[in-house]
Amino acid sequence: MKSSVLIITCVCLVNEGNADNFDILIDTKENSIHRLDSLNILIYCSLLALTVLTIWIFKFRRVSWLNETGLAVIYGLIVGAIIRFCGKVSPSTHLHVEAEKSARYNDSLPPDNLYIHFPGILNVSAVTKDQIYAYKFHGQLIRNTNEIDLKATFDPEIFFNIILPSIIFYAGYSLKRKYFFRNLGTILTFAIVGTTLSSLFIGLLMYGFVQLRPNHTSFTFLDTLYFGALISPTDPLTILAIFNEKNVDVNLYALVFGESVLNDAVAIVLSGAIQNYAEYYSKTGDFETHAFLHALKDLCVIFFLSLNIGTFMGCATSLMTKFTRVREFPLLETCLFVLMSYSTFLIAEVLQLTGVVAVLFCGICQAHYTYNNLSEESRVRTKQLFELLNFIAENFTFCYIGVSMFSFEKHHFDAIFIIGGFICAALGRAVNVYPLSWLLNLGRKPKLPWNFQHMLFFAGLRGAMSFALAIRNTVSKERQTMLTCTSLIVINTVIFQGGAANYILNWLKIPTGGEDKPEQLTYQSIRTDAENPEQCNIIHQNTGAGTKKNDKAFLARVWGNFDSRYMKPLLTNSRPTLIETLPKCLTPLSRILTTTEQLTQSNQSRRIDSDSDLCIDDNSQEIRRNSINRVSIRLQDGYVASYKNYEQK
Amino acid sequence: MKSSVLIITCVCLVNEGNADNFDILIDTKENSIHRLDSLNILIYCSLLALTVLTIWIFKFRRVSWLNETGLAVIYGLIVGAIIRFCGKVSPSTHLHVEAEKSARYNDSLPPDNLYIHFPGILNVSAVTKDQIYAYKFHGQLIRNTNEIDLKATFDPEIFFNIILPSIIFYAGYSLKRKYFFRNLGTILTFAIVGTTLSSLFIGLLMYGFVQLRPNHTSFTFLDTLYFGALISPTDPLTILAIFNEKNVDVNLYALVFGESVLNDAVAIVLSGAIQNYAEYYSKTGDFETHAFLHALKDLCVIFFLSLNIGTFMGCATSLMTKFTRVREFPLLETCLFVLMSYSTFLIAEVLQLTGVVAVLFCGICQAHYTYNNLSEESRVRTKQLFELLNFIAENFTFCYIGVSMFSFEKHHFDAIFIIGGFICAALGRAVNVYPLSWLLNLGRKPKLPWNFQHMLFFAGLRGAMSFALAIRNTVSKERQTMLTCTSLIVINTVIFQGGAANYILNWLKIPTGGEDKPEQLTYQSIRTDAENPEQCNIIHQNTGAGTKKNDKAFLARVWGNFDSRYMKPLLTNSRPTLIETLPKCLTPLSRILTTTEQLTQSNQSRRIDSDSDLCIDDNSQEIRRNSINRVSIRLQDGYVASYKNYEQK
Repeated sequence: MKSSVLIITCVCLVNEGNADNFDILIDTKENSIHRLDSLNILIYCSLLALTVLTIWIFKFRRVSWLNETGLAVIYGLIVGAIIRFCGKVSPSTHLHVEAEKSARYNDSLPPDNLYIHFPGILNVSAVTKDQIYAYKFHGQLIRNTNEIDLKATFDPEIFFNIILPSIIFYAGYSLKRKYFFRNLGTILTFAIVGTTLSSLFIGLLMYGFVQLRPNHTSFTFLDTLYFGALISPTDPLTILAIFNEKNVDVNLYALVFGESVLNDAVAIVLSGAIQNYAEYYSKTGDFETHAFLHALKDLCVIFFLSLNIGTFMGCATSLMTKFTRVREFPLLETCLFVLMSYSTFLIAEVLQLTGVVAVLFCGICQAHYTYNNLSEESRVRTKQLFELLNFIAENFTFCYIGVSMFSFEKHHFDAIFIIGGFICAALGRAVNVYPLSWLLNLGRKPKLPWNFQHMLFFAGLRGAMSFALAIRNTVSKERQTMLTCTSLIVINTVIFQGGAANYILNWLKIPTGGEDKPEQLTYQSIRTDAENPEQCNIIHQNTGAGTKKNDKAFLARVWGNFDSRYMKPLLTNSRPTLIETLPKCLTPLSRILTTTEQLTQSNQSRRIDSDSDLCIDDNSQEIRRNSINRVSIRLQDGYVASYKNYEQK
Repeated sequence: MKSSVLIITCVCLVNEGNADNFDILIDTKENSIHRLDSLNILIYCSLLALTVLTIWIFKFRRVSWLNETGLAVIYGLIVGAIIRFCGKVSPSTHLHVEAEKSARYNDSLPPDNLYIHFPGILNVSAVTKDQIYAYKFHGQLIRNTNEIDLKATFDPEIFFNIILPSIIFYAGYSLKRKYFFRNLGTILTFAIVGTTLSSLFIGLLMYGFVQLRPNHTSFTFLDTLYFGALISPTDPLTILAIFNEKNVDVNLYALVFGESVLNDAVAIVLSGAIQNYAEYYSKTGDFETHAFLHALKDLCVIFFLSLNIGTFMGCATSLMTKFTRVREFPLLETCLFVLMSYSTFLIAEVLQLTGVVAVLFCGICQAHYTYNNLSEESRVRTKQLFELLNFIAENFTFCYIGVSMFSFEKHHFDAIFIIGGFICAALGRAVNVYPLSWLLNLGRKPKLPWNFQHMLFFAGLRGAMSFALAIRNTVSKERQTMLTCTSLIVINTVIFQGGAANYILNWLKIPTGGEDKPEQLTYQSIRTDAENPEQCNIIHQNTGAGTKKNDKAFLARVWGNFDSRYMKPLLTNSRPTLIETLPKCLTPLSRILTTTEQLTQSNQSRRIDSDSDLCIDDNSQEIRRNSINRVSIRLQDGYVASYKNYEQK
């Protein structure tokens, strides 16, 4: 009744209303943009869902000639082709403008915004009053089609601000620290020296290649050097998935994983340094040795500062979780953990450092310290959350690489550059692996055998990082050429090299099926019986004893000592406390830094606590170690809780 | 050695390189945009981290005069003010342009893109060749400052495409279905009839208010009606957090929760219908009864279709998880679950339906069917993942509402409209609650007492949805006025009404401390002893018996019957199978639709499975029910697994 009366009244009022339709028209425009956005995301969601289902089928049927990243790329290529050749272009209107006669503009770059008066001399009926509209810089128009394609392209900012940190943080958080530290020297050599070498080598060689072209191109040496830096980092995904399945030798695993995580960071620092060099030091256009050295110094400073910010934020989180009792509210705790980790990335980026390096080391610290302070629920939740994010982020990236090959407008095919790129990428990898292996074998105790070296060479697939660096700037034709070449290299290495990896592994007679399972989480479900809580302890005591026998690197030994005496007592709730390890004169300080929880720990719970920590650090002899551990820890915590309850009674 | 030689060569080559610096300059620009983006996100991350820590302190110290959403808003306001009054504006360049003399443009709206020739008549030194650049539509310029502020504003698209679906999906996924269905009629009346009524009422009243202004405004009735639709939905967050703490009467809880979830959906459909009416049906500018009815029909069709898409996608996911063995790979399974749920939202949006409605019902179906097919790991992971997403999304939204009050440029203060808005919002809520309660009490068996009605009135806080609808379009001055008014209403209701809720609850003598704990997950950690696996069964059998005694609504009873006979057997692995419930003639079909897993279930595992399902559906007599259940289910699954292992031996 009431409602119908209202409706009638409303009818009269609307009749009276003035039809100032402009707002509504703007709404329509917003709606259509929103729909287009949704469609874009939907395409990727469906692609990912399809990829997930196919991955399952492949795992189920034990298909080995195509890996999951290859699959994502292939699906992406198919969908990209469909969009390209069947999709309708959304009609967008445009207007050619010129600067106002009276406009004064004196800058070396095109302006960020254009302001235009409406309706002005135009016939734009919806604009009745005199209004000024702003337009934002979008990019250079290419081709004569006169249209900017909105189809299935996405903002590289999303990649750099969201996808990349997820992947890199997870790499740090799930890093197999034991073998990583044991091979630290080798990994650092390959990652830092090797990547720099490879970048320079590729830059030089490519510069030679582009000189071959009949019509002299506009590629400068800085351009090709940038290409060298972006094509040098290798992608671990495909290879490590296969290594996981085959239980490959843990040292080889650690080398490939560690190197590819770090060389992503090195590549991003290198490419940044090349940009900085050009920006700040070479304004005259000439090369100055002084400026070059300055850029080199910058590179080191940036790497070092980023590393520090990462570790600082990691330690800050562990202090927060140690000294507050936020662990009583696991949701808040997890939230804090996620926010602190992501802030690390952002702080580094804001300070013009390298977020990727910061977030990598933050991840390592979070796993090493904070993880031990977290409540049981948060441990599981953070691990699973980042695992999922990482999985989606990776697969999305590879789908996107496939789709963009067709749908991204800013490609420029240049046969000579592409052929050169393929050759240089392979040679660059060789320059990275073989000479350095030879050098390392002079000092390294378990030498790197030939088959490991070949495998390292072969594991040089290019992936997300190369693509991301290439797509970041596609304004000029040179950069577009680089993007096209990079995309092709990534697609081909992932599909063909990745597909062949299984056979190469057999052909090179790499030891597989080792008992030590790598850290990376497998997709297997937990279907084990509930373990005896003591089992974990026993396992740890065994491996702990084993570790001491192993020949650790000097660096690792010193660090391990310092870590267990000062860092762990300070940052986590583990024993011994600082009161025990610090000199007597510092007792007041160490008392402040020791929590009641740390002091009141009985021997019983202490042992369990440090064990649960070490079970994550170290490897046990079990297959599906991680899954089992997670169950064990859960039960242990339950045990501790019940123990405490018992005490309270 | 090698490296130093390379560096020297590179020095020579760079010297030779031509200083075509344009790319590098563009890189610099991209970098600075990236840094600004990072800073924006960092501000929100820090704000959230601060909020999380303060929430913990408040919980720890049992502060009740300020709730967490109020806290987020206040922090947001403070930071917004700081940015506003202390922040530097990033220098951005602009150029006034006009249409080319030869340009032909004939559209009722400003063009999407402007194309401009460089360098043209300008002195833009970095552009050497003749190039065309594109600029994208950004919005109307307001004020005479001639600058667009990039500080701490974010794209409403992010809200509608990412944040909103997370919140709404979680609402559906964690819906306390038992009490929801028991109060279905009341909830639907309040949500659908009530919200529509309140929108119309507010629209009418506001139209009266704006006529009061001395200078006649340009607000049309459609504008005020739109305002009515956007200010009508209520936000459950703050109130429910308090209800949770106080263990408020479950029926009241269900009413508030159910209504506010559904009225979000109704409001979004209503506002869409108002836009559609203006767009499609009223092109002449006059009101047509035919067009109005058409829009009304659309409203119903859209709601119904969205609901269907949601349930369809939910059921599709449950079929996928039932008939594939993807549950052996929990990561893939979780990923599929997330992707399917998100796709639901996107599909609805692409089809011009209402994604929020779709994702809400998808969430309900996922919880009701798919959840039972998931592996134990995926169950925990999905619950925890969406809980975390929801928490971050909600707090982010409230922080953003606070920050935007100062930092968002497109505010327009209009005292009369604001005062009118506050009065109308309160009266609209009253029109929603009291007359409908009176009507419902004519038929409702346990009548809604006065104190419940007052509490429902008082629970009418405005929140994220109102704000989101208001910020979606801020091109014109009218819309900006609406945004300002909405922001103020949201901020004030959340801080003051939310802060007072605790006292009102006592003052109205609402029964609290009930034994039935609401479904919403609490922030408490699992610190209970590992439960005996059988306990969950026992609890269920008790509550199961209890449920039957309760007086269910007729609708709920019919649905419950159909559901357990046909829907559950079809979509999940539970017994009885379709072979048992479908008529004999359909046996071939039902055989296909029954999995081996379903058939081979022993009585033992069947009971456990259906119990674990019902433990989530129903309430037990325990405090911290959810936490306990999760542990029980885990152990049960372990038990099932060990049982199966035993069988295999």
